[in-house]
Amino acid sequence: MIRVAVDALGGDRAPEEIVAGALLAANDEIKPILYGPAGLSTGGLELVETDGVVEMHEKPADVVRAKPDSSLVRAVRAVGDGDVDVVVSAGNTGALLAASLLHIRRLPGVMRPAIAVMIPARRGPTVLIDGGANADARPEHLVQFAHMGVVFAEEMLGVTEPEVRLLSIGEEPEKGNQLTLETAALLVGSGLRFMGNQEGRVLLEGQADVIVCDGFTGNVALKTLEGAILSVVGSLRTEVAATVRGKIGGLLIRPAARRLRQRLDPDTYGGAYLLGLKGLVVISHGSSSRQAIANAIGLAARGVEHRLVDRLAGRVPERVVESSRSSTP
Amino acid sequence: MIRVAVDALGGDRAPEEIVAGALLAANDEIKPILYGPAGLSTGGLELVETDGVVEMHEKPADVVRAKPDSSLVRAVRAVGDGDVDVVVSAGNTGALLAASLLHIRRLPGVMRPAIAVMIPARRGPTVLIDGGANADARPEHLVQFAHMGVVFAEEMLGVTEPEVRLLSIGEEPEKGNQLTLETAALLVGSGLRFMGNQEGRVLLEGQADVIVCDGFTGNVALKTLEGAILSVVGSLRTEVAATVRGKIGGLLIRPAARRLRQRLDPDTYGGAYLLGLKGLVVISHGSSSRQAIANAIGLAARGVEHRLVDRLAGRVPERVVESSRSSTP
Repeated sequence: MIRVAVDALGGDRAPEEIVAGALLAANDEIKPILYGPAGLSTGGLELVETDGVVEMHEKPADVVRAKPDSSLVRAVRAVGDGDVDVVVSAGNTGALLAASLLHIRRLPGVMRPAIAVMIPARRGPTVLIDGGANADARPEHLVQFAHMGVVFAEEMLGVTEPEVRLLSIGEEPEKGNQLTLETAALLVGSGLRFMGNQEGRVLLEGQADVIVCDGFTGNVALKTLEGAILSVVGSLRTEVAATVRGKIGGLLIRPAARRLRQRLDPDTYGGAYLLGLKGLVVISHGSSSRQAIANAIGLAARGVEHRLVDRLAGRVPERVVESSRSSTP
Repeated sequence: MIRVAVDALGGDRAPEEIVAGALLAANDEIKPILYGPAGLSTGGLELVETDGVVEMHEKPADVVRAKPDSSLVRAVRAVGDGDVDVVVSAGNTGALLAASLLHIRRLPGVMRPAIAVMIPARRGPTVLIDGGANADARPEHLVQFAHMGVVFAEEMLGVTEPEVRLLSIGEEPEKGNQLTLETAALLVGSGLRFMGNQEGRVLLEGQADVIVCDGFTGNVALKTLEGAILSVVGSLRTEVAATVRGKIGGLLIRPAARRLRQRLDPDTYGGAYLLGLKGLVVISHGSSSRQAIANAIGLAARGVEHRLVDRLAGRVPERVVESSRSSTP
């Protein structure tokens, strides 16, 4: 039985959609435990009573200390204290990161935790890391992200010797900014299967198994991707609805459109792992629906089953030492 | 009569598609002049004979001095020398930038030229600046980009008091990296209509008139956008073709899909302006088709008609001085 702490007050649609998602995910193997206010209607799920809520706009560093009894902080602390196996929250990402650093703590050797996001590429899922935990990062951080992404791809996606690429502005090795140029030099000597740069153009095609970038670039790319998918589908719907002929065609292609939407819907994964900690944390979209939350809880449980944290603990720090050694003069 | 120098050897499909595009664009008002090797079949267009080609992978700084007679360098120099009104090239962007800095030179006060790209947003075209000229940039550069983008939106798109936003990882002012946080602080005091951050999610919707970012982020976002559009449309086509029902529906929605493609096709604009120079330069996509080149030449001519360089010369430096003053202690 995998125990999943669920932050009942995290996200724009909390608590209703969160509770509903937890109920959807509950089964013989998965036990969601809700962290939320007394009296919350949980449909029979266990409730750990908490006091206070972390708002989306609150400053991460302050809020974690100022609101130790909030649903977000308590749910995260439950992982650190060993009360649960994993935590899922659709709340303030920065606060989640800050609470995790404080209450779960980093794996030895890991400088910065990073968000590993699965991209539903045509060739199959690709791991992008960092999806937004580190808005500013140094080359040695990116090398660690690459190592973590590789362990993720191997353990969770079953990829043998995953190919790593660096998100940049051209495939040629001389294309990039200071950060990517220095990172590329380190990745070449990292022992990873580094294949060079990748452009944002092929993100949805799936050129590499693991795509490495700083959290700012990764977050901009992910949101651009998401927005473009929604916008193209929405615009096509508008155009189709503009004529009778289009409407009939639209009805006929509906099953095809549904299959596409299923693959591209961010709710399909429901969340992303925050990797590099001594415990497992899953971050969901602020706008998560019940289905997204249910899927995120499923993702959280799979991470526990695959003992993702142990795998990372066994491999990242060691390799990281290698890489950083080669980077220091 | 507007004289447009066209680099006949720039781009993956040169010279055939370039020459064909120039022929398409030629009319009573627009006179494309091809810069290319002796004997090039020009279909009657004027040819300025050049010697050598700048390859896509060549290092910009070296190549401009090493190949002064190449089609790219000569076409750019023609603007600097006043032989033509504007230059269009689908060649090596870095080399184009380096050649422009050397032979056209920056407008007084402008620290860094930047690429202004029009995004075909649902609400109408949006200007993204910098689309890739400056992989590393400082906050004061971004403020200049904002000023240039505003002049562009006013003069070329007819927008009154354009709204400026900063591309970042959240709308909240505290979200961002070091660069965007410092830039936002400067933009607040810039006299521009700065509305805060914008996420990549809404790029295709058109939240702002001008979106400012460094060239690395901008280029990643633009390519991600472009790739996502192609990938979604391509995937939908595959799904639709998988069943007979889908195929019939696909035929019926074809006109709707065509209208959408027309708006989203990068060939619609065909190119982007490199702004901040004493002359006008239009950069086209490396993979440009004849239609893209023809549209780029049209765009180049419109920039000349609107006296875009004069407008920038009259306004950017002055405002930039204001902004930089407020940024220095």
